[in-house]
Amino acid sequence: MTSTTRPQNDGGLSRRAVLAGATTAMFVPATAAALGTSAVAVSPSTASRPSAAVPAGTTHRITMYVEELGGGQVGYGLEPGAATIPGPVLEMYEGDTMEITLVNTTDRDVSIHPHGVLYDTASDGSPFNASYNGPGETRTYTWRTTGERSMGRWSRPGTAGYWHYHDHAMGTPHGTGGLAAGLYGALIVRRRGDVLPDRQFTCVFNGMLINNQSAPHTPMFEARLGETVEFICIGHGDMFHTFHLHAHRWANNRTGYLEGPRDPSQIIDTRDLNPGDSFGFQVVAGEDVGPGAWMYHCHVQFHSDGGMAGIFLVRNADGSMPDGAQESIDWFHEHEGGH
Amino acid sequence: MTSTTRPQNDGGLSRRAVLAGATTAMFVPATAAALGTSAVAVSPSTASRPSAAVPAGTTHRITMYVEELGGGQVGYGLEPGAATIPGPVLEMYEGDTMEITLVNTTDRDVSIHPHGVLYDTASDGSPFNASYNGPGETRTYTWRTTGERSMGRWSRPGTAGYWHYHDHAMGTPHGTGGLAAGLYGALIVRRRGDVLPDRQFTCVFNGMLINNQSAPHTPMFEARLGETVEFICIGHGDMFHTFHLHAHRWANNRTGYLEGPRDPSQIIDTRDLNPGDSFGFQVVAGEDVGPGAWMYHCHVQFHSDGGMAGIFLVRNADGSMPDGAQESIDWFHEHEGGH
Amino acid sequence: MTSTTRPQNDGGLSRRAVLAGATTAMFVPATAAALGTSAVAVSPSTASRPSAAVPAGTTHRITMYVEELGGGQVGYGLEPGAATIPGPVLEMYEGDTMEITLVNTTDRDVSIHPHGVLYDTASDGSPFNASYNGPGETRTYTWRTTGERSMGRWSRPGTAGYWHYHDHAMGTPHGTGGLAAGLYGALIVRRRGDVLPDRQFTCVFNGMLINNQSAPHTPMFEARLGETVEFICIGHGDMFHTFHLHAHRWANNRTGYLEGPRDPSQIIDTRDLNPGDSFGFQVVAGEDVGPGAWMYHCHVQFHSDGGMAGIFLVRNADGSMPDGAQESIDWFHEHEGGH
Repeated sequence: MTSTTRPQNDGGLSRRAVLAGATTAMFVPATAAALGTSAVAVSPSTASRPSAAVPAGTTHRITMYVEELGGGQVGYGLEPGAATIPGPVLEMYEGDTMEITLVNTTDRDVSIHPHGVLYDTASDGSPFNASYNGPGETRTYTWRTTGERSMGRWSRPGTAGYWHYHDHAMGTPHGTGGLAAGLYGALIVRRRGDVLPDRQFTCVFNGMLINNQSAPHTPMFEARLGETVEFICIGHGDMFHTFHLHAHRWANNRTGYLEGPRDPSQIIDTRDLNPGDSFGFQVVAGEDVGPGAWMYHCHVQFHSDGGMAGIFLVRNADGSMPDGAQESIDWFHEHEGGH
Repeated sequence: MTSTTRPQNDGGLSRRAVLAGATTAMFVPATAAALGTSAVAVSPSTASRPSAAVPAGTTHRITMYVEELGGGQVGYGLEPGAATIPGPVLEMYEGDTMEITLVNTTDRDVSIHPHGVLYDTASDGSPFNASYNGPGETRTYTWRTTGERSMGRWSRPGTAGYWHYHDHAMGTPHGTGGLAAGLYGALIVRRRGDVLPDRQFTCVFNGMLINNQSAPHTPMFEARLGETVEFICIGHGDMFHTFHLHAHRWANNRTGYLEGPRDPSQIIDTRDLNPGDSFGFQVVAGEDVGPGAWMYHCHVQFHSDGGMAGIFLVRNADGSMPDGAQESIDWFHEHEGGH
Repeated sequence: MTSTTRPQNDGGLSRRAVLAGATTAMFVPATAAALGTSAVAVSPSTASRPSAAVPAGTTHRITMYVEELGGGQVGYGLEPGAATIPGPVLEMYEGDTMEITLVNTTDRDVSIHPHGVLYDTASDGSPFNASYNGPGETRTYTWRTTGERSMGRWSRPGTAGYWHYHDHAMGTPHGTGGLAAGLYGALIVRRRGDVLPDRQFTCVFNGMLINNQSAPHTPMFEARLGETVEFICIGHGDMFHTFHLHAHRWANNRTGYLEGPRDPSQIIDTRDLNPGDSFGFQVVAGEDVGPGAWMYHCHVQFHSDGGMAGIFLVRNADGSMPDGAQESIDWFHEHEGGH
């Protein structure tokens, strides 16, 4: 079920796009090797960090390419030849608009359907609303966002959240073929004042796979001790799952942070991650627990034993490998997954 | 698995009862056709809208009938011959009491077991507590409610919530036969000051069915642009599900609205909906996205492909059909479900 | 699948440890019979109630024994010969540390892996980090805790929560064999000011079993009318579940109580309880509903019918049996489970 030769968005190398307000998407290649040096890595998140100068209500215009990746896999990318699984992380602030010109380079129907944001039926991304790309077609989808609207005592929610996008046309009218092939990615809508991370990891539980890979080929998410890292977790497929991260925890709410001492949110380190659902949170890598190789995995026993596990590698602050971490990584490659 | 001839509570025509404080239940027939005219439809929700004049602590006395509907289906109704699947929406304010005289017109054991509210063991609705109707029997069940009780820094919760009721006696001591046959419905307990909707939709994921129907025969929930609509979502059976609504979103908390700018609740458009669970929320139909035919469905791919999908039709403000909506409805009938 | 002869932690007789700050664990045997008398039972909870004199940042040092219980079952205990399924309830306040010296009396690999708290890789409890006990080995694991840390507008969460611990080494590198055998228990980290209960019940949905038992041998949790009881619910295995408690409800947040009138938390009486997840809450036994035999069960129909049900017996305030309760208990033994 896995292939090590096709393009992959793993190693914590998320492609982060458009929060800075650019009208063309950013694509900042970074390598895990760079993380291991003492030089400051030009990480995607650093490169795309929004500045206070970005005006509210920006319209982000990007082009996305649907491309075959071999072995039955298909991905979204921000440039020709750059498709990955998962696709790039797309980001906006509440009030922004995103126009996605989707180029279908395949010979099948495909679309892009977002969760959480605002769109009219022409951008629904579904055959039901005749809103998809036929083979070889190009089509533009528009997603809008809004802040919350006061009703007096109550407010109607805005669109800030850890959302996701995915195909809704390939294989079946619900995109079952496209999802199985890898057509999914993270979509973040932030509220002004939200904390911005140093690094981002998209983690998709899709059937028995993580980002369409099985252990030991699942992504190794990497950060340095003390960096703020953001996990965006997405579920797809036909199975139920529970996402568990070792030695780190977060609040079960919109951001993963607490809104002061009276925030009643439960603190969790495991959360249901079922098809169509998504959540996100930030943690400080290794805070209070130190650097090392920490496991993340589905906590359904049959799933973790069957390959739904991966490594969150927290390097030392200078980027060097912590004591014992390489041994853990080696152990993982020898023992996890279908061995 | 479906039948088009038996009585059905679909089309957004919920039967809403007793919030107004009447001691006999209201049953207001409304038709989808009425919704399409420019005349103001006498919708169930309008008819039963509670007034400020309803005193706190009202006791609502209703009679419910358990009736065979043919094809192995059984429903609850507020009048003889009026049983539907789901049963009527029952509503109270915190502090109210509801006395349900349950008439069993079948030759099997049956009961009514509520979630969330207060009852003594004689109203438990279970064979375990010898609290059920034998064949042909009539029995009265009493449900009470309360507001939250302060303990100083903390409060013990009251009973406000989007709850549900169901059989707990037919087929097995847990009502497995009754649930499969359709013996379930929504139960709402409101807090004073809660927002009242214009329309209500009960959506029950029961095995692979929605309100015991499979696409394309699943309910089409209808509203006009700008109306406040309330979804009450309930899970039953043996399978896990995720409820997804296109182009609308809500806060994952008690009401679906935010309690001001520091409410930490996650905003969602998809939520786990597993057996025995329930939640509810309100959205403004088509707000920020316009009218049209929007899909709701289970996001488990095998389930949506297999018929767990339906239509939320947001008509124009004057009740007319939006551009393209009829085409989407036609498409749905040709392509969704077991085709 | 059940055995009535091996040691069991049922009947609401939780073994509660170390919150009082003792450096040796408390183990207070109590009997259900004691609960039935008018004398005040020396319950575990009373015995271990923390006093205000316990200094912040206490280090609790305990020894835990992994022991075979016969029939393929294995448990954790705080003294030799005292292993139970689930293991003892371990408690701390935020700021405390717990050092667990784990004695492996079996001939298999075993470990103790906690959720929610702070630990370095040497206390991860996983083969992945070479952190486990080989056959017959003794090893010390250290768990730390912390309060929330302010970041200005936001706070990073502390470690307060209803967590759990479990084996992560027996059978597979994810402890699948140990979990099946019974190596799990509750771990509570409290915030100063949290409400302390009169009684505690650990309820683990593990495959089709509750605390490794099937109805009618599932635990009967007992309390007196008006006592504050704490449920700690934990999921394990390969199946999804929904925990439902009759006639009682709680807030779906960190404590189960509301943080005042603007706490937006949903009030629930049913909650998803999937592998690796945990939650807890307190209710006043029988409040507003009276004493009696109340059911708790998985709400997945196939599971409740198949034996995932038990009794929450709320006795009269004087400890005597409520009217009808014995009949319900007798009914349960005749009708529930594999009959």
